[in-house]
Amino acid sequence: MGIHTYFQSLNDLERIIRCPGKFKFEEHSVSAHSWKVVQYAKTLADIEESNGVTIDWKKLYEITSSHDYGEIFIGDIKTPVKHYSMELRGMLQQVEEGMIALFIEENIPEELKPIFRRQLREGKDDSVEGLILEVADKLDQVYEALTELQRGNTEKEFVIMYREALVKIKKIKLHCVDYFLKHILPDIVNESSNCPVDIQKITKEALAL
Amino acid sequence: MGIHTYFQSLNDLERIIRCPGKFKFEEHSVSAHSWKVVQYAKTLADIEESNGVTIDWKKLYEITSSHDYGEIFIGDIKTPVKHYSMELRGMLQQVEEGMIALFIEENIPEELKPIFRRQLREGKDDSVEGLILEVADKLDQVYEALTELQRGNTEKEFVIMYREALVKIKKIKLHCVDYFLKHILPDIVNESSNCPVDIQKITKEALAL
Amino acid sequence: MGIHTYFQSLNDLERIIRCPGKFKFEEHSVSAHSWKVVQYAKTLADIEESNGVTIDWKKLYEITSSHDYGEIFIGDIKTPVKHYSMELRGMLQQVEEGMIALFIEENIPEELKPIFRRQLREGKDDSVEGLILEVADKLDQVYEALTELQRGNTEKEFVIMYREALVKIKKIKLHCVDYFLKHILPDIVNESSNCPVDIQKITKEALAL
Amino acid sequence: MGIHTYFQSLNDLERIIRCPGKFKFEEHSVSAHSWKVVQYAKTLADIEESNGVTIDWKKLYEITSSHDYGEIFIGDIKTPVKHYSMELRGMLQQVEEGMIALFIEENIPEELKPIFRRQLREGKDDSVEGLILEVADKLDQVYEALTELQRGNTEKEFVIMYREALVKIKKIKLHCVDYFLKHILPDIVNESSNCPVDIQKITKEALAL
Amino acid sequence: MGIHTYFQSLNDLERIIRCPGKFKFEEHSVSAHSWKVVQYAKTLADIEESNGVTIDWKKLYEITSSHDYGEIFIGDIKTPVKHYSMELRGMLQQVEEGMIALFIEENIPEELKPIFRRQLREGKDDSVEGLILEVADKLDQVYEALTELQRGNTEKEFVIMYREALVKIKKIKLHCVDYFLKHILPDIVNESSNCPVDIQKITKEALAL
Amino acid sequence: MGIHTYFQSLNDLERIIRCPGKFKFEEHSVSAHSWKVVQYAKTLADIEESNGVTIDWKKLYEITSSHDYGEIFIGDIKTPVKHYSMELRGMLQQVEEGMIALFIEENIPEELKPIFRRQLREGKDDSVEGLILEVADKLDQVYEALTELQRGNTEKEFVIMYREALVKIKKIKLHCVDYFLKHILPDIVNESSNCPVDIQKITKEALAL
Repeated sequence: MGIHTYFQSLNDLERIIRCPGKFKFEEHSVSAHSWKVVQYAKTLADIEESNGVTIDWKKLYEITSSHDYGEIFIGDIKTPVKHYSMELRGMLQQVEEGMIALFIEENIPEELKPIFRRQLREGKDDSVEGLILEVADKLDQVYEALTELQRGNTEKEFVIMYREALVKIKKIKLHCVDYFLKHILPDIVNESSNCPVDIQKITKEALAL
Repeated sequence: MGIHTYFQSLNDLERIIRCPGKFKFEEHSVSAHSWKVVQYAKTLADIEESNGVTIDWKKLYEITSSHDYGEIFIGDIKTPVKHYSMELRGMLQQVEEGMIALFIEENIPEELKPIFRRQLREGKDDSVEGLILEVADKLDQVYEALTELQRGNTEKEFVIMYREALVKIKKIKLHCVDYFLKHILPDIVNESSNCPVDIQKITKEALAL
Repeated sequence: MGIHTYFQSLNDLERIIRCPGKFKFEEHSVSAHSWKVVQYAKTLADIEESNGVTIDWKKLYEITSSHDYGEIFIGDIKTPVKHYSMELRGMLQQVEEGMIALFIEENIPEELKPIFRRQLREGKDDSVEGLILEVADKLDQVYEALTELQRGNTEKEFVIMYREALVKIKKIKLHCVDYFLKHILPDIVNESSNCPVDIQKITKEALAL
Repeated sequence: MGIHTYFQSLNDLERIIRCPGKFKFEEHSVSAHSWKVVQYAKTLADIEESNGVTIDWKKLYEITSSHDYGEIFIGDIKTPVKHYSMELRGMLQQVEEGMIALFIEENIPEELKPIFRRQLREGKDDSVEGLILEVADKLDQVYEALTELQRGNTEKEFVIMYREALVKIKKIKLHCVDYFLKHILPDIVNESSNCPVDIQKITKEALAL
Repeated sequence: MGIHTYFQSLNDLERIIRCPGKFKFEEHSVSAHSWKVVQYAKTLADIEESNGVTIDWKKLYEITSSHDYGEIFIGDIKTPVKHYSMELRGMLQQVEEGMIALFIEENIPEELKPIFRRQLREGKDDSVEGLILEVADKLDQVYEALTELQRGNTEKEFVIMYREALVKIKKIKLHCVDYFLKHILPDIVNESSNCPVDIQKITKEALAL
Repeated sequence: MGIHTYFQSLNDLERIIRCPGKFKFEEHSVSAHSWKVVQYAKTLADIEESNGVTIDWKKLYEITSSHDYGEIFIGDIKTPVKHYSMELRGMLQQVEEGMIALFIEENIPEELKPIFRRQLREGKDDSVEGLILEVADKLDQVYEALTELQRGNTEKEFVIMYREALVKIKKIKLHCVDYFLKHILPDIVNESSNCPVDIQKITKEALAL
């Protein structure tokens, strides 16, 4: 009851581990991931701004920091499950939203309810801020997969994660995506020359898709 | 491709942690849980046999050891999600079954396919073996919740877990449930007299439901 | 060299553990802490706004998310060291700032350097945003200490951490501090009635200072 | 006292780590190992049955699931110690059996004592079930060693573990061993072509012994 | 081959956990334990010296720092196993000594062999240094058990560990034991007044034995 | 108050992790490091003695076992911070010494104060014992860095750590350093031939500096 319950619930995301079930040399909690997404998004938005795009920083703040809050209620459901069918995906999203709505209803004081409803909404819409969030989220997938592969992880899932994240990023029309492809990705590839898996080849293939 | 892929996949269940997101003094993997369920079920079936009931040991072996194998594909989805609606629950079970079927189709050699389809089916039916599995599964929930509460865990979810497991067990008509209520549960309650949470009271309430 | 080096460096904060050397039932990384500070600050700023205060959301975003980035270079130096003398404290802050400046100089592209210099500056100034950051940072100290005490941690340092954080918060003149003292802190105290340490008494004493 | 004490003791095996003292990228508890042995044995027995061999499933259930229960009392004593001399080995086995017998005497109710004495006996006899247990136990040693070597572990002990497990398996006359050598082992070897250690060569040498 | 092999082997003791199988809020490696024994022994010897006793510091250095080195070969065998019978105990000690002798024979250069044979001998003899080692070793058992009990650990084994260590210490005739009983133990007991287990009562009983 | 407080404080060093913030396949606590330094120093001193040098074993015991005790108060401050400027370094050492002095003043009984002041002093002076401590401390840095590099760690910091430790060791004029360079280092290099990083080349370069 009250903001205390909300503040206290944040701790739960430190105990939900991303990519459950797969062997990892280093585990990442949803809260650590969320922080990195906030940080990436800030720099991505800076790049947009320096290209003359107007950023709604309040919106960007709200949607990046809270984008995985719903996992408190449903956990880190495996990606293949989410993508099993559009119907199931829709239903899971409905459950997540329903549980968030219920949490707000039961715990958040009347005067703050509208604010929480706006903040904890799904943020990945077609606005600049929504697209930046999508890029930042996938960027963390790139880094999570890459560091595992560089250290010799042999799980094929990390090759898939790396490739799919790249494919999604390159399709988004933003100045910061151009910047990423031109300035950041080449550094990633160069640094991975000793990697047991051929990062250069996988990267080229992903960009060609 | 082949039994190797299946054998290798078993390792994944050591990395899926039960009750994700909640603070725990001690974590339990799905594989450790599965082994304990196998052990409890064996003793529960012994008690049934000593009361003259015939046990199909092959079936019991198959359904207890594999009862959470599907979590390799869908992860440990939070209980509230599973129970959100009968429709979602049905759909999630369908996805799990679909992914298991696909795994068998793609990986298991032709001659062993029928065996794997039978083994990896949902085991909690109304047969003695299915009911024993249900009791054993809930019994582990009792122990997992209880040990946390005894060590001073203040998460309310463990009180709920303990109570709900008891409520489910006591409704099952088996000799081993009578044995549990008469001989095992009193020992559990006696041992918990120093527990910060009043186990005796919660137990009484659960049995009265 | 480049933004890649900066993005990659963020991962380091997942491996720096807060309050090193003291026994903890649950460890918190600097990145998880940073995310929670971002979240608290958002709600605290919402409360300010609903009281008619204007918030510079871009600034708040920048200073909250990066407020502990410098620990990548100097680690989580123990609080007693930081507070040993004003001279040492000043020198340590100088080192941290020097190392951040050097990092920007060597790694950040020319056109983004001014942005990074502004973002990675010390954010705890006397502006509303700086004060909100201070409250949010101390609020996480309250929660970290409290959860340890509730679970039976006997390290006296957590009593000190809890008390000192409260003392610092209550001195800050913000609407959100009034809200915290009136609506959030009473819930914290109520919930801690079973705690081995007398939270109510410590809280009263801290507020009376 | 009573079955409760037995059920509760099972949790101890989650805290005994296999192969203590050696560096491992991934640790395995005795309970997770036990579950995998149960699973391998099931499939191995299925292969025997499909070759016309009769399986006593109750016996197989009992001996596979409990085959390392005695480690609760004596811990995971290092293999070189066990094999130091036949005399010491015999004495250690005597101690383990003595401690199990004492545990049953003190804790298990009179009517269940004979059942527990049978279940917790040493299961690796010359029956089909005993031999399947031996194969399944060594198979897990193969997988444990292999995954470490594939990830770049440089401890020589894992090469020895892998080789010795293969040598033991191939000497056992069972249909499932033929199946393993013909269908499973080639997949293991193929998959290990990128491994820093030459798995193919070690495998050939082991099979030639 | 050579001192390198010996130096490298030291790392193994960081991976052998004391008191395996029992639930612990905090785990201790054999190397951390060894360091604490070295530290306690130093202060205990200082107390002896200040009472006019002559200490052979070289011997004390050698026997305290290496007193558990043999666990590299045999692991942390559970205390009940060691104490099962005098015969088994003797045999296990023989194995440990045999394996140490073999290690020295195979790895240590000829000119250093006599030094290593002396250093890695069993150090708990009746000399002042041997007795100080025994006190220091048991003192760490006191602290390991006590901190678990203070944090709410309900495993009975820690009560036994605490009591048995005290019983052994008080029987040793040394000035530092008198000092411990008069100056250190009372502080331990006073500090444990909030402990769920009655430390004062257990202490009194142990001292009365 | 009293020796109890000192003994209890030793446990803190088990929770301070060396080289914080960098990815490591295996973490080392300051207490485990301290124990290994004690062990290396013993053998290094044996080598000195066998070359006719007289060792003050009591002094060696005191300075090796306590050489990182001060980290209890200031934590494991990152090396770059320590070396930022001679002025800061001096000041940090002053703080550490000041906090140790205060701890002794407040906690150690009057009659033992002089002993503790001597033991907890900075031990790395120009005496044989002080130099042996310096070699042993750097030797552990060699092993910590090397094992990470051998397992495929790609953090450049471990190359730097390895190189800098070698450079420091080879400048110290001791018989044991000659022994290390002639007998131990070649074994280290030989063993690292499969290492992704070229240890032989880095070693040669370090020795040529």
